[in-house]
Amino acid sequence: MKLGWIGTGRMGYEMAARLAKGGCDIAVWNRTKAKAEPLKNYGARVADALPELASRDIVFCMVSTWDDVKDVIGKLLSGSSKPKMIIECSSISLEGSAELRRILREKGVEYLAAPVSGNAKVIKAGKLTFVVSGPKAAYEKARPYLDLMGTGSSYVGEGELARIAKICHNVMLGVVIQSLCEITILAQKAGMPRHAFLDFLNKSVMGSMFTRYKAPALVNLDFHVTFTPKLLRKDLDLGLDAGREFEVPMPLTSLTRDLLQQMIGQGMTEQDFSTLLLMEAKASGLQLEPENVQVGDGL
Amino acid sequence: MKLGWIGTGRMGYEMAARLAKGGCDIAVWNRTKAKAEPLKNYGARVADALPELASRDIVFCMVSTWDDVKDVIGKLLSGSSKPKMIIECSSISLEGSAELRRILREKGVEYLAAPVSGNAKVIKAGKLTFVVSGPKAAYEKARPYLDLMGTGSSYVGEGELARIAKICHNVMLGVVIQSLCEITILAQKAGMPRHAFLDFLNKSVMGSMFTRYKAPALVNLDFHVTFTPKLLRKDLDLGLDAGREFEVPMPLTSLTRDLLQQMIGQGMTEQDFSTLLLMEAKASGLQLEPENVQVGDGL
Amino acid sequence: MKLGWIGTGRMGYEMAARLAKGGCDIAVWNRTKAKAEPLKNYGARVADALPELASRDIVFCMVSTWDDVKDVIGKLLSGSSKPKMIIECSSISLEGSAELRRILREKGVEYLAAPVSGNAKVIKAGKLTFVVSGPKAAYEKARPYLDLMGTGSSYVGEGELARIAKICHNVMLGVVIQSLCEITILAQKAGMPRHAFLDFLNKSVMGSMFTRYKAPALVNLDFHVTFTPKLLRKDLDLGLDAGREFEVPMPLTSLTRDLLQQMIGQGMTEQDFSTLLLMEAKASGLQLEPENVQVGDGL
Amino acid sequence: MKLGWIGTGRMGYEMAARLAKGGCDIAVWNRTKAKAEPLKNYGARVADALPELASRDIVFCMVSTWDDVKDVIGKLLSGSSKPKMIIECSSISLEGSAELRRILREKGVEYLAAPVSGNAKVIKAGKLTFVVSGPKAAYEKARPYLDLMGTGSSYVGEGELARIAKICHNVMLGVVIQSLCEITILAQKAGMPRHAFLDFLNKSVMGSMFTRYKAPALVNLDFHVTFTPKLLRKDLDLGLDAGREFEVPMPLTSLTRDLLQQMIGQGMTEQDFSTLLLMEAKASGLQLEPENVQVGDGL
Repeated sequence: MKLGWIGTGRMGYEMAARLAKGGCDIAVWNRTKAKAEPLKNYGARVADALPELASRDIVFCMVSTWDDVKDVIGKLLSGSSKPKMIIECSSISLEGSAELRRILREKGVEYLAAPVSGNAKVIKAGKLTFVVSGPKAAYEKARPYLDLMGTGSSYVGEGELARIAKICHNVMLGVVIQSLCEITILAQKAGMPRHAFLDFLNKSVMGSMFTRYKAPALVNLDFHVTFTPKLLRKDLDLGLDAGREFEVPMPLTSLTRDLLQQMIGQGMTEQDFSTLLLMEAKASGLQLEPENVQVGDGL
Repeated sequence: MKLGWIGTGRMGYEMAARLAKGGCDIAVWNRTKAKAEPLKNYGARVADALPELASRDIVFCMVSTWDDVKDVIGKLLSGSSKPKMIIECSSISLEGSAELRRILREKGVEYLAAPVSGNAKVIKAGKLTFVVSGPKAAYEKARPYLDLMGTGSSYVGEGELARIAKICHNVMLGVVIQSLCEITILAQKAGMPRHAFLDFLNKSVMGSMFTRYKAPALVNLDFHVTFTPKLLRKDLDLGLDAGREFEVPMPLTSLTRDLLQQMIGQGMTEQDFSTLLLMEAKASGLQLEPENVQVGDGL
Repeated sequence: MKLGWIGTGRMGYEMAARLAKGGCDIAVWNRTKAKAEPLKNYGARVADALPELASRDIVFCMVSTWDDVKDVIGKLLSGSSKPKMIIECSSISLEGSAELRRILREKGVEYLAAPVSGNAKVIKAGKLTFVVSGPKAAYEKARPYLDLMGTGSSYVGEGELARIAKICHNVMLGVVIQSLCEITILAQKAGMPRHAFLDFLNKSVMGSMFTRYKAPALVNLDFHVTFTPKLLRKDLDLGLDAGREFEVPMPLTSLTRDLLQQMIGQGMTEQDFSTLLLMEAKASGLQLEPENVQVGDGL
Repeated sequence: MKLGWIGTGRMGYEMAARLAKGGCDIAVWNRTKAKAEPLKNYGARVADALPELASRDIVFCMVSTWDDVKDVIGKLLSGSSKPKMIIECSSISLEGSAELRRILREKGVEYLAAPVSGNAKVIKAGKLTFVVSGPKAAYEKARPYLDLMGTGSSYVGEGELARIAKICHNVMLGVVIQSLCEITILAQKAGMPRHAFLDFLNKSVMGSMFTRYKAPALVNLDFHVTFTPKLLRKDLDLGLDAGREFEVPMPLTSLTRDLLQQMIGQGMTEQDFSTLLLMEAKASGLQLEPENVQVGDGL
């Protein structure tokens, strides 16, 4: 099976690298070609132009926005060749995904929506997971390659369901970070160092990969951005929109959304969404200081 | 080091068993002696009366309520001997824990508050964790035995801080189950089987031991009680009380508490707290059916 | 000044009647002409066809939906005559109102958006109020006629601002009814008859015309519909949409919206939105009975 | 009927003045006697010592705290005389009120709990109201005097029920001010001057005496304290405590409480609770300015 890969940003690079290291026959394209070059070390070929990838069997797409997706897929299919299957892993909307499905159906290209859970560090640690929707048969063909990139994939059904599953995932992420902030500040005001409390929590049954890799942020106030407050608000709004459409009340989601808006309104938009900790501290009359304690991220 | 163990209920039995299997010299007492007897197979001695345990170095206590704790510790110390240290693992209140500390200080017995995260199944799987507070030196002595019972312990400071940490843990548990219910019902109404959605979520960075061992309940509606709605409400109220005392606003906690009250008010008090899923379904116009799919609990 | 009136439903009839009784020269049209006939008793003329109203100076429009508005205004302007001003009092959307403004601007007809606060009973009691937006000069011309219909009008600015003001009004209505339900059930469970508690509340500084005219519903469980749960949910959603657009967090609004959705999900859609009282009672383990006490509606 | 009055602070003074002006035979005592002296102009007698009031038929008490109440009632009853009835109008707790009832029962003095709705301005405007609990017969005797002080009283039942009714009233006050803040900031960001929007709202069916007398604060940012954020938080906490006791979920109350805590945590404790408007504005990225528009308080 010949694979193609579009997009070698922070996450795409690591994903393609895992396929290449896993022995796959893979050709890679990136807008800034230089970023893709190091993949040659693992046996990948680096393409000069997108249409070169049209002859691959399966082409993965991992870029930034729906506009990027539309652009690269358009160019990929601009010639006479076309891949058998395209697997789209970017975080695009339900509507974008459905439009892409229509485009690819007309071209006779199989299509899987396959957004991911994890960030670049998670991929490097071999712990990425996928949620996949589209034709079941296509999923079975793609599965071994998805598995190579992490700890597995879950098939949730036809169409764009995987996009909704990813929104649900991000909704929970928002609720969990806010809950973590509430209890971490409570623990601190009661007398516990944050690192001690989070050490317990992260070892406990409540600990997740997410709560663990957020520990450095919560302990040492390292808020370099992984996901901006506005992007998280966007996903919570998408979740609430889905809640309206399907008539599912989502009170914790609504409230988390409004707390995030409070933070955005106060101008805290450029750092990581986990600055919710600073908001919670402020609302508790507390000025936070980094604890400067070495804490792992669990990866 | 000679160990003593008081209380071999569902959790206490498994914990004592791990110490015995780990080669510790351990004497066990339980109100209904028969329940402790099988521990002899692992080399434990079974005591007839509590004062027999007074000559052990460290005595662990794992019973049901503060009244039970008071009773058994009273009897344990009714003779002339006394252990060097008592480690209390039950889920007792801050006030109870502080009173016990005063009692033991007068008797010259070291005391650690060491509540746990996990249930009987978690212990069997070797994944129990402890959060510990009290004198640091006492913790260092106790640590190897705590470690034998699971995957580790976290020391959070002096006094009864571990009790607050445990409350924080249970607060998060309440918020997370409600969030899980919101997104699971949304996923289902959007067209995903619950087991498929939760398979993704549990593999993802958001998955925790807790979300995984709740999957059978959420998928197959197996709501045999692990923790009652009223007990969870009690812990959320304790969290909110602490939030008042330390002036920490806990909006997600408040809201989860009120949702739980809605369920209790509707008479759903005898099954597991995860019947919150049924409430969420009902509020979404959905009548749930078990999916009757084999799902693991991740343990 | 010659007035025209379109729409003599429950509210429109009472409004037109007040203008007629006030001595205005008014011609009225209604789809079902018979409903308008009694207005002749107060000196109104009843038109057979909409274009007859095109020669009036100011034409008021009070119908049900945006589709109705579009239809009647189209017919009104289908001939060669046109009124100087149209005042639209129905509860139409921002977008509908803006489209109407464009249509009327092209025709050279002045336009005021003038939604109301109150129901048919409120109008009868002479207590209707208007919130108005559009050209200030037009408002000054219209003002005396608006004042004739109730206790006054408020001008909030250009364009469709009055529509947003009305949404804000309905958002507050939703929050206030839920708050009333919370405290009324609390008062009852503490031992007060609902009518006694509400008698106090309605006399107190917290009492409003709204809380007073809801007393019969809350006391005697008379839930004949004044506004359906789904219509209220729609207005809360419009409020939340505006909150998103203008980046204003509205946590009480979000929560009220979700509580309303819980009720709708449970199938309570056909009675008045004040059945929120039944939801609150149910969530408190209480089966409500009508108190069968004569209570006024304050009008 | 000979009346006695204890406490001529801002509110007590106005209340006693209304009784005196109404032609009652009234004797007044205040810790700082000078504050009571002007009441002589209306025919009141000013007592030098509390026991002088013991021979009156009904003694009203309007002081600050439960400690004050206990102190003045103790001194009042320190001699051999005693009034037939004591009517306590201060905002004391349920527990304080119950203790006072026990004390007075032993002394054979009838007792009514009669907290009020309104502030000094409301009293001056003749619009004060009472909520009363205690023996019904006592209420009937007291009623004419309560009516003289404002627009009426409501009897809600035996014992301390009036205290709970007052807490419910203040719970609603908290929810309503937060809702007002949400919609006022939304209206402003949409383009309306606050005074124009509130003019509409206050004339509308949603307008209450409370929303009207808060207009100067919301329009001109005049936040001189009428009720501090901490006192409002205390009343919301009392409401939530009652909600726990009677198992009534109060989600809007919980959320308002947490929003208030956010404000208190940020150090905004010395001005009026209506500074919630500033919090809402800040959370919406808005810096508020006074509009410097003359707005009435509706009194």
